Formats: sequence, C-alpha cells, structure tokens
Amino acid sequence: MNSAAQFYPAFAARFAAFASALPAGRYVVVGHARPDGDCIGSQVALARALRAPGREVVCVNTDPVPRRLKFCIGDTPFLRATDLPAGEWAALFVDCADRARAGDRLATRFPTPFASFDHHLSNPIFGTHSFVDSDSAATCEILAGLFLDAGLPVDATTANALYVGIATDTGQFRFHSTTRRTFLLAANLVAHGAQPAAASAELYERETAGKLQLLQRFLASFHLECAGRVCVGILPAGIYEATGTQPEDTEGMVDYARGIDGVDIGVLIEERSDGIKASLRGKDPTFRLDRVAAQFGGGGHACAAGLNVKGSTLADFRARLVAALAAQISSVDTADTIS
Amino acid sequence: MNSAAQFYPAFAARFAAFASALPAGRYVVVGHARPDGDCIGSQVALARALRAPGREVVCVNTDPVPRRLKFCIGDTPFLRATDLPAGEWAALFVDCADRARAGDRLATRFPTPFASFDHHLSNPIFGTHSFVDSDSAATCEILAGLFLDAGLPVDATTANALYVGIATDTGQFRFHSTTRRTFLLAANLVAHGAQPAAASAELYERETAGKLQLLQRFLASFHLECAGRVCVGILPAGIYEATGTQPEDTEGMVDYARGIDGVDIGVLIEERSDGIKASLRGKDPTFRLDRVAAQFGGGGHACAAGLNVKGSTLADFRARLVAALAAQISSVDTADTIS
Repeated sequence: MNSAAQFYPAFAARFAAFASALPAGRYVVVGHARPDGDCIGSQVALARALRAPGREVVCVNTDPVPRRLKFCIGDTPFLRATDLPAGEWAALFVDCADRARAGDRLATRFPTPFASFDHHLSNPIFGTHSFVDSDSAATCEILAGLFLDAGLPVDATTANALYVGIATDTGQFRFHSTTRRTFLLAANLVAHGAQPAAASAELYERETAGKLQLLQRFLASFHLECAGRVCVGILPAGIYEATGTQPEDTEGMVDYARGIDGVDIGVLIEERSDGIKASLRGKDPTFRLDRVAAQFGGGGHACAAGLNVKGSTLADFRARLVAALAAQISSVDTADTIS
Repeated sequence: MNSAAQFYPAFAARFAAFASALPAGRYVVVGHARPDGDCIGSQVALARALRAPGREVVCVNTDPVPRRLKFCIGDTPFLRATDLPAGEWAALFVDCADRARAGDRLATRFPTPFASFDHHLSNPIFGTHSFVDSDSAATCEILAGLFLDAGLPVDATTANALYVGIATDTGQFRFHSTTRRTFLLAANLVAHGAQPAAASAELYERETAGKLQLLQRFLASFHLECAGRVCVGILPAGIYEATGTQPEDTEGMVDYARGIDGVDIGVLIEERSDGIKASLRGKDPTFRLDRVAAQFGGGGHACAAGLNVKGSTLADFRARLVAALAAQISSVDTADTIS
C-alpha cells in the first residue's frame, strides 16, 4: 500500500485489504454482456494485475470480445461464459452495474462475487470487496488509480487497455465525467506504455467504406421537426444490403442527429424485417426520453432511450413518435415557464 | 523564469528573455487565415498573457473568428486585418508555419515580427523571438507549457482557450502528436478552469443542418484510389451555396476519408472560385505528406498537409495529386522492403 495515494485515497486501505486477501487459486474476471471498451479494458487490466505464481486467471463474458477491441487484450485469456471450466473460481466483476449485467449464466454461477469494480450510479454495492465510484469516468479510471496508488507494476498492455477504457467511456474526453484526474491518469498510462494514437487508429480508423455510405444515406434523410428541436433520420428497409453493412454499423449514428445546433432530441428510425426500431438521444435529461420510449413499450435513460414496434408502417410510426416528442417538449417548456 | 521548467526546459531561458523584452506599447497577435481552434486558442491565450498596464493588445486575422469558436474568446478583442488601426504595432505570430499563412495584408504589414509561436514542421523560424517545436501537438500546447513553466497567471478563459486548441489540434487526443505532456497539460488546464465537456458541446454539438448535408455530399463523393490505400472526396464548386455552408465547415471532414480500414491517406479536394485547395491526412508519418504537398507549393505536417493550386482543372489536378500520392506510397513501400 502506498501511504500517499494520489488518485483514490478513500480506497487505499480497502484495496490493500483486498490485495492481501488473494490466495493461490483460480480467478475469473467477469465483464458485462455486449462488452464495450471500458469493460474489456478493465478485464484485461485486472486479470494481468492478478497474475502471480499459483494463480490462474481468465476473463469471461457472455458475448465475444468485439472485433474493434481485440487489439488491446494482448495475451490475456478471454473465454465465453459457456466455455468456463467447472469447479471453484473466485469471481471479480468489472463495469457491471449489478450481477445481472453479466448475463444470466454468469450471474447465476457467481451469486457471491469476491470483488467488484464499477462506476455506475445505480450499482447496489455487491461483492466481498467492492470499489464503486460513480464520480469516475470509467471503471478503467478506478483501476488505473488504484494500481498507481498502490505502486503495482503496470505493463504496456495493461496501460493501453486502461487507456482504451477511459478514452472510449469519456467519448474521447468529451463527456461531463472527464476531470483533471482523468487526464492525469491518461498521462501516467502513456508513461507506462499506452499508445493513444495507435489505439485511436484501431478504434476509429477501421471503418468500412460501407459504413460511411450508410452514414451518408442516414444524413441525407435528416428532417427537422418540432420547429427545429427534433431531428429525425431514417434507415429504410434494404439499406444494409444496399451498403453492405449490418445493424451494428448504426452505432453512434444518432449522435449526428442530436449534434445540430438548436436540436434538443435526435432520432434514428430503422425499418427492419421484423418491425421498426427507434433510438432517441437528448442533449438534456429534462426531456426524459425514457418516458417517451415507454409510451411505445421501450425504455432506457433520460438522454438515451430506445424502442421497438411491430405492425406499424414507417409513416404511421414516425408521425406518432414525432407527436409524442412534441407533447414531451411542450410539457417540459411549460414546466420551465412555471418554475 | 522558473528554474525547474517541467514542460519546455529548452525554451525556458529564451522565454524569460522574451518576457523581459516586452515594453509598453501596442501588440497585435496575428493568427492564420481561416483560423482553427489552435489558432484562435493561441491568440486568446497570448493576448491575455500580454495584458499589462501600458500595453494595448489585440488579436487580428484575415478571416473572422469562426462561429463555433466564439465561445472561447471571452472578452479578448479580435479585429479583421482590414480594421487594424494604422501606426506601430509589435506583431506576434501564432500557429503560422510562415508569415504568408496570415494572409497577404498581414504578411506585408509585418515583415519583421517581434515573436512567433508555432508547431509546424516546415516553419523556417521567423521573428525576433521564436518558439517553434514540431514535436508539440499544438501551438496551444507550447503556450500552455511556457506559461506554466514560467509561473504566469492563467485565468479560466486562457485555460479554456488553450484546452480548445489542444483538444481540436489533436482530434480529441487521437493523433500521433498526443503525448504524456499533452495529457499533463490538459490536466493542468482543467485545474485552471478549462471545461472539457462544455467546450465539447460547443465544438461538436452545434453543427448546422447544412454542415451535415455538406458532409453527406462529401461522403457520397468518396472514391478509393491506389488499390484502396487512398480515399479521395470532392467538394465541387457551388456546394457551399447548395448547402448553405462556408469553407470553414469543411473542418475535420477529411478525417472521414482517412478513417476507412485499409486506407493510408485521406484526401479532401475543394474547388473554389480562386483555385483548388486540397487537404491530405495520413495514418502514418512515414508517408511524409508535407513533402507531397510541397510538390504543389503547399506544406504542413507529416500526417496532415495542405496545398492550394491555381490554373488547373479539378480533373487534371486530381490526377496529378493521385499520381504524386501513388509515387510516395510506392517509395515508402520500397524503403520498408529494403530496411
């Protein structure tokens, strides 16, 4: 334990207790379903920090490591949940707001985790040793701070993985969660071998030409509604075939609709063979888009919600959604005027 | 002068000499034509640092401060080149690879600048006091380091402007120029009042609908050359009028051309009333795009260069540029094979 913990002084004693309570044995570092950069980065870093004679450590997820994140795992072993050998494993959950986020099989198999590391506001605090801080921009920020505070060795793969988690979960240092500590840790990780430009090239410069044509068609469909406060973009049936893309290629596209000056809410409507899917993104949580989505059987967060409907034409659904958004904007405006 | 200069020890003595050679009088901080975030941020920061009793300081540019950068100038005075009062002014050039980058009127008016601060590789070193470091990610990185090393007071507007310059010129900490020092300075600037999230909202969530249609047209024009290693996008004459946009709205667009998997060099070619402008962006500095640009009278960095040509048709110029890029790629490939 480092007596001068710089980044997470409140966790220093607890982390020392955790580190001294790690016997020989088998450890599994559990991430959440549909893992993102912060999840994979946290798993890589924690698994590597746990490596020691007499310990076996593997990472496990319900879903595979996404193609664009494979570059950062190095020789860290990752298994699918279905492939984890039977027997005793001490489970450490990372970036999971609750055990259920890991997926049914893993949540059921590890009812009493040995530890958890997370930054989600809704985390109920689970695990014998828990390190949860919702003021942190990423679970990787917490792990980086704990490792550096404790003076643990941080190899280049660990540093790079932690950097990837921080960079992706802050939207490249753009979100409100980005603080002085975030940048100080990034500087430290670069000193330990993180490679911001190489990581960015893997994360953002390996788009397919098809994905850019999908974006182009989406942008071409933009239409402003509600006096310019809502921007709706459409991905009609057949567009994936026409551009050689897949539904996962829509990731992040709705942000273009939200990013227009004067627009409060961006909308992506996708016509699929089994119905219509819509994504809603707001600039301000007062619009409570989770409530709008709920009117169509969907849900989510105040600024990011989604829904699926069946048995409706695109034109009909679009009109109903715009009407619901207009009503929501009107009610928020009225509340603002009254307060 | 701070004897323990942390960020730019090589400049410490020179900066102290510069600071002690600033008499009362009138100072003009000159930025380049079509100013970007690093230019405006540098002008704001340097102008504010120069403020003292007996000194009058204004910033001047050939072109106006772009709409989306106005948020970061605070009460710093900016003038158009045509509006700068006559008489004696000591000129400090920032972010200008050479005097000509400021535009004809300013380059002619200030043949012997008092100082220059820049990070462009091709800078010939001009000005009585010059601070040029091409290893720096931004001119704002140099200024931030110099100010902090010297212990100058940095107010919140200065810190935020310097942050904007660093964040924009590194593509949000994604380019090769991003180093440990870049992050350490960002951390310091946040401590002095820079606001990463608020700046990001201004920079990236206030696009005009027209700019997204400009992007859409640019994406639709993409064509792969050199066996998929070069992606060329075109903005033809009349496109600004058709989309209700301006040349400044092209900022960042060439990155989409570079961002395709397998592409080494992204190109944006813009047909203007007074000639053709091209921007080149490489994934790897070995392609030395500054040298390719130099063949057409342009310049810049190894991974980011630009050029302007007159008296050539779009088709003719495009063919000559693609040929030059093909030759450059071929020579780099050959060198790789030999080494």
